[in-house]
Amino acid sequence: MEALLRQSRSMCPFLNKTSPATLRSLSTTTRHVSPGGGTMSNLQVLARRCPVMGKAMNVQAAKNGTNALNGVYGGVRAYGGKAKIHTSRPQKASVASDMLRDGSPVPIRHSQKPKTQVQQEAVAPGPKPAAPKLATFDYEGFYNTELDKKHKDKSYRYFNNINRLAQEFPQAHMTARDERVTVWCSNDYLGMGRNPEVLNTMHRTLDTYGSGAGGTRNISGHNQHAVDLETTIARLHAQEAALVFSSCYVANDATLATLGSKLPNCVILSDSMNHASMIQGIRHSGAKKLVFKHNDLADLEVKLASLPPDVPKIIAFESVYSMCGSIGPIEEICDLADKYGAITFLDEVHAVGMYGPHGAGVAEHLDYEAHVAGRPKGTIMERIDIITGTLGKAYGCVGGYIAGSAKMVDTIRSLAPGFIFTTSLPPATMAGAKTAIEYQMEFQGDRRLQQLHTRSTKQALVEKGIPVMPNPSHIIPVLVGNAELAKQASDLLLKDWDIYVQAINYPTVPVGEERLRFTPTPGHVERYQKELVIALDAVWNQLDIKRTADWAKQGGFVGVGVEAKEVEPLWTDEQLGLRSGAERAELRMLEVEKAIQGSIDEMGELPRAVAAAA
Amino acid sequence: MEALLRQSRSMCPFLNKTSPATLRSLSTTTRHVSPGGGTMSNLQVLARRCPVMGKAMNVQAAKNGTNALNGVYGGVRAYGGKAKIHTSRPQKASVASDMLRDGSPVPIRHSQKPKTQVQQEAVAPGPKPAAPKLATFDYEGFYNTELDKKHKDKSYRYFNNINRLAQEFPQAHMTARDERVTVWCSNDYLGMGRNPEVLNTMHRTLDTYGSGAGGTRNISGHNQHAVDLETTIARLHAQEAALVFSSCYVANDATLATLGSKLPNCVILSDSMNHASMIQGIRHSGAKKLVFKHNDLADLEVKLASLPPDVPKIIAFESVYSMCGSIGPIEEICDLADKYGAITFLDEVHAVGMYGPHGAGVAEHLDYEAHVAGRPKGTIMERIDIITGTLGKAYGCVGGYIAGSAKMVDTIRSLAPGFIFTTSLPPATMAGAKTAIEYQMEFQGDRRLQQLHTRSTKQALVEKGIPVMPNPSHIIPVLVGNAELAKQASDLLLKDWDIYVQAINYPTVPVGEERLRFTPTPGHVERYQKELVIALDAVWNQLDIKRTADWAKQGGFVGVGVEAKEVEPLWTDEQLGLRSGAERAELRMLEVEKAIQGSIDEMGELPRAVAAAA
Repeated sequence: MEALLRQSRSMCPFLNKTSPATLRSLSTTTRHVSPGGGTMSNLQVLARRCPVMGKAMNVQAAKNGTNALNGVYGGVRAYGGKAKIHTSRPQKASVASDMLRDGSPVPIRHSQKPKTQVQQEAVAPGPKPAAPKLATFDYEGFYNTELDKKHKDKSYRYFNNINRLAQEFPQAHMTARDERVTVWCSNDYLGMGRNPEVLNTMHRTLDTYGSGAGGTRNISGHNQHAVDLETTIARLHAQEAALVFSSCYVANDATLATLGSKLPNCVILSDSMNHASMIQGIRHSGAKKLVFKHNDLADLEVKLASLPPDVPKIIAFESVYSMCGSIGPIEEICDLADKYGAITFLDEVHAVGMYGPHGAGVAEHLDYEAHVAGRPKGTIMERIDIITGTLGKAYGCVGGYIAGSAKMVDTIRSLAPGFIFTTSLPPATMAGAKTAIEYQMEFQGDRRLQQLHTRSTKQALVEKGIPVMPNPSHIIPVLVGNAELAKQASDLLLKDWDIYVQAINYPTVPVGEERLRFTPTPGHVERYQKELVIALDAVWNQLDIKRTADWAKQGGFVGVGVEAKEVEPLWTDEQLGLRSGAERAELRMLEVEKAIQGSIDEMGELPRAVAAAA
Repeated sequence: MEALLRQSRSMCPFLNKTSPATLRSLSTTTRHVSPGGGTMSNLQVLARRCPVMGKAMNVQAAKNGTNALNGVYGGVRAYGGKAKIHTSRPQKASVASDMLRDGSPVPIRHSQKPKTQVQQEAVAPGPKPAAPKLATFDYEGFYNTELDKKHKDKSYRYFNNINRLAQEFPQAHMTARDERVTVWCSNDYLGMGRNPEVLNTMHRTLDTYGSGAGGTRNISGHNQHAVDLETTIARLHAQEAALVFSSCYVANDATLATLGSKLPNCVILSDSMNHASMIQGIRHSGAKKLVFKHNDLADLEVKLASLPPDVPKIIAFESVYSMCGSIGPIEEICDLADKYGAITFLDEVHAVGMYGPHGAGVAEHLDYEAHVAGRPKGTIMERIDIITGTLGKAYGCVGGYIAGSAKMVDTIRSLAPGFIFTTSLPPATMAGAKTAIEYQMEFQGDRRLQQLHTRSTKQALVEKGIPVMPNPSHIIPVLVGNAELAKQASDLLLKDWDIYVQAINYPTVPVGEERLRFTPTPGHVERYQKELVIALDAVWNQLDIKRTADWAKQGGFVGVGVEAKEVEPLWTDEQLGLRSGAERAELRMLEVEKAIQGSIDEMGELPRAVAAAA
């Protein structure tokens, strides 16, 4: 075919005179029905009249059982008697390149000229095929409209270029390498992303097993790293089995979608503040969904009681709700599940690594002593039917998982498309995550220090009247209450104070509840806390943002400025070792060590702006 | 609260005498309506009668505006006037641990005793709450049934433990470290997973930026690695912009679901052999779906013509269909899209890195010369509206992406929950993937050698009558036609021949079309090909699997044993440099170099089994 075309071209007066654009136009416009029953371009119609091409086409047609010049089916063969396999047609490429060499018009691209106008306009001189005479849909216009909406309601997201530095944790550089900022909103809660044991494991695994898994779990992507990681996760949560996914978004989505669609007449009861991944999974399942009020057991029970006992039910909820820091009543939900024959689906994404003596999450923390003593039998954690968690936050890597009974895990493994049809996580990622989990199973220091930093930061902010939304967890949400103000505060902190904290706006939180969300780590030692308080105080003044007292005057809002008993942190003084002077001293030593290990210039000079304000 | 309870316990004759199990049972069974309108446990009812506790409860109730001993709301406060924040209740933990210390019954777990029986059985002696008297759903029984179905129809998947060795590519070790096998079904098509440039980049990035991104793209997870990778991808595909996702499964799912649900009255036209990720995305979109026959333009056009011109339409298809190796008619679909005002959504997952002078995929390959000359304007690739690809196959890492117009990409970035609400890929992964793409943009050798190995392997198998399903791509599907036989063949190859190739059964391929799917790489040099042919020939004999001639006697099936013109590979002889003797010699040198670099003992002894059979 290729040789034939080249030859024809050099010989043929028609082909030589006609521009590639016209040829292209002829080859794609107004197709006639060919003798073989297919369509035919105008070029083919002309070619059939030519003594050379006509003959050649007949020969090809006889060979292929199809039209030789038909760009569509060139060199095609039957597949299963029905479908077609498309094969090589490299000569078309050279036509396109000639076209450009000639400087003749190129096909119109959507981004240069959207597929939107009445199509006649575009047809006349160019190589475009003839089109129906009616207006087609304006895709680029649609994208513009959607983006305009986001700009107008201030929910358009501007990403900040934040390069977190392993050797200078919790600092990062911006686009410019010498522009340092302190990161106050990372979910690398424990700094495991720079943990030497994790990094060493990853380096070793990279060298031995390469950069990728190379396949799905079923096809060459299953390996010892997956086996070991899943065994470790099952052990962590005192469950029979575990399954690793690309992310916990995928784990939640795939698991809820699969169970909700496969369990006959399944109903999913979902906490009103559940994460987007669960909401999507429930939607994708097509199952009936009943939303219960956030952490409201009475509402949940009313809804459970309204359902027939034999109908399968899943109660989907979280342990730590990441945007407000509230904590789910896990044991009581287990009780209700037992009472009404439901299973529990608990997302511990923001809690794994952070709570419990082994970092298994809030469910473990609730039976602290039993788990310290290594007796998981009969604990709340063991009662949960499905626990989901992430390897990408406190464990510092990436990926997500579910844990539960062996049969449940095997069912999801066997049925969930989001697990089956995707490339496994790289061996180095799985090995690194396993090291991180094991490290945190053995070592309590990071999460204790994280809690101490949370306490002292919260306290310092509260003393300045900065409206911290009270909660028992490690999250510090600070209420702003206005999307634009929240963004301005975030921008000012970055520009004037080298502090990076992202504004959290709708749809992540409801309109009117916009906030800044701070997440201290073991690396946020005193100096950083001091800086933060000074900076926030200044920005609150500068932008005239409401303080706790202002909210109180209005009767309080989302827990801020409400007269109430103080919220007790989930980690008690006792668990943090604050009861004895010796333990307190030990923790202080740990903090200093952390500061030294991290090459943090704890005692160094405060930045100029901070020093001036202090 | 805590001190109060401890004090009460040491003083109170009732609390001291009663076992923790009974206390637990009392605290969770038969709840009465409390004066405050909530529910109340039997323990609370008893406590109200006690002179000490009763008083304390009244004090607490006054303080909290709720029931002090109510396990559910202990230490609760109003949140937004409606929802509740659950707080610490560490003393419950010690109750649970006491229970265990006493050896008294622990709560029943689903895996020990499924939530299935009539609930009365479980209630009597244990700490379980009272339950309705009707049978509840049998979850474990459901899992069992689902798994049984998979076993019965032979679609249950047994994962092989395959540890691909970077230094011994394409070899891997099994569970035992000294048990070597040759991997013949990895999607690390070019061996980039062990490419020194990629690994060096990853090592450097790990040390500087740590093991994880630490947040979503919006909250601290956006960085120079994401920016650089997306810029590189956009450049690769001659598109304005690109967006990286956790995987291409997520990219396809999230993009189609978002566009399909947001574009008003959108219709998605989907090739019948599209990947599960696209099928899910379309399902999740809720948009109307029209499936057209595989690669059948006439069927596609009939369906397009049936729709009003102004209705938004997406044509979703692939370039290389991975399980049969067929190739989509990209240009012709672009023409139809233009004609009917549709946009094109092209999955190049199995083609990126593999086709085109820069490895951008089949769309690039179709305008080979234009892209060699660096003139992407007006090419087929540039006409595609949305290209999706993976970083986890030919690029050897993990992750996926879309590329297209800036506005389209920004819209997906702004609206797709699967992008917004998930942790970014780690910096090292993104940096490694960028290096892999750039390496393959510069270097043609890997994909050419891969194509040569594909050709020679296909030819050698065809000569032995092994039923290779003909196609123009780099995939070598070998028809078995029976699920059990396919699994047996795969097992025998592994056990007797140290060759790993996974059987591909339903639902990945239709029932009756079960196959083995081989994917040669640049590392599958002559020795491995020779081994494979000998092994397959022996296994085909041993299991009496049909050969090409057997299929031909039946009139052929899925392209096997059909009398037809030979399928021309997409890579032409010319593009592979097979036209001149000098180029041929150069490629041979490349192959030898590859063998040496890879420490492959190309000329070494054949394994015993192979030597005996040869």
